[in-house]
Amino acid sequence: MPKSKELELKLQRTEEQLRLFQKISRLMVRDLGFQEVLKSVVSFVVEFTGCDSCLVYLLDREELVLCGSSSPHPGTLGKVRLRISEGLTGWVARERRLLALPREAFKDPRFRSFGELPEDTFEAFLSAPLIARNRVVGVINVQHRMPHQYTGSEMEVLTVVGEQVGSLLVLASLPAKELESLAPAELALSGAPAPPAAPKR
Amino acid sequence: MPKSKELELKLQRTEEQLRLFQKISRLMVRDLGFQEVLKSVVSFVVEFTGCDSCLVYLLDREELVLCGSSSPHPGTLGKVRLRISEGLTGWVARERRLLALPREAFKDPRFRSFGELPEDTFEAFLSAPLIARNRVVGVINVQHRMPHQYTGSEMEVLTVVGEQVGSLLVLASLPAKELESLAPAELALSGAPAPPAAPKR
Repeated sequence: MPKSKELELKLQRTEEQLRLFQKISRLMVRDLGFQEVLKSVVSFVVEFTGCDSCLVYLLDREELVLCGSSSPHPGTLGKVRLRISEGLTGWVARERRLLALPREAFKDPRFRSFGELPEDTFEAFLSAPLIARNRVVGVINVQHRMPHQYTGSEMEVLTVVGEQVGSLLVLASLPAKELESLAPAELALSGAPAPPAAPKR
Repeated sequence: MPKSKELELKLQRTEEQLRLFQKISRLMVRDLGFQEVLKSVVSFVVEFTGCDSCLVYLLDREELVLCGSSSPHPGTLGKVRLRISEGLTGWVARERRLLALPREAFKDPRFRSFGELPEDTFEAFLSAPLIARNRVVGVINVQHRMPHQYTGSEMEVLTVVGEQVGSLLVLASLPAKELESLAPAELALSGAPAPPAAPKR
């Protein structure tokens, strides 16, 4: 491939990544409910990765609950639950680490089938924790039906999405009156140390 | 300039922009105090834009208070205050719009000198509102001593920084116990309309 063609392709991909981050950042300032936020983020991720499935699990005490899906199967949202000790998704939440499996994800010793999702038979699996102020609040999974070598840019995108969605979740959970009583200048000038960290998962 | 050289430069700049967003996103998941967050963001912006000054003003009721600076002059942080009806910075907060002046910013009819900051004599001025969940909480200013034509990428960076910093401010203001009581799955599945909503627990 000629060098300029190669550069063009790389530039195009980098610009796509940038647009994705800008679109997610724009969600921060809109007063959307968290369900709308989830739907938008899932569609951005599908568009960027060209994946066959994007699932979002959120923590409910010691369980991960399926709360978002690029192609929700009837009766699965809010119903599919896995313990944090279970499966690839549980591992990502527990270890708080990105996981990329290019093929035969179902043969991984950590894999557990739930028999409810067609995604269980997909070959490639990329997964990142959702983090809000240093605490795991969920997991986002990208899956390809066929083997797929995840690129550095796909991994980086999912990492940033995990950071941003965790924060969006906290923002969406705040009652409006709490925001009204916020005193930004005081907070910046108070010299208060960082609040103690919430327990990590 | 040969085409591949041009592409290389453009790619380099796009990658720098991407790195900046990633660094800011990474701040989201660290349990930093808001002062540390401000300092980091200001240094990222200075590095990216090569500006001579980066100032952050935060709202305190009807006033904007200088809370962050790339080169803080003694006795100005927390002391320089302007009414939201005053100056270029007040205009940005009030109108909630990006403002870019490539030269003679001090001749703009909206300009007001405070006589306390050397930045008042700088030629070029780029400014964006800090926004947290649809509400202006402050303003971030980038200034160049000499005339400077701000690029689309500089404007886009400052817009995203404004969105991210506003959200970081809200996150940093939350007591840890509030985060512990967060029920992410409930929030996503409740079908609640966009906030204001009652606290979940």
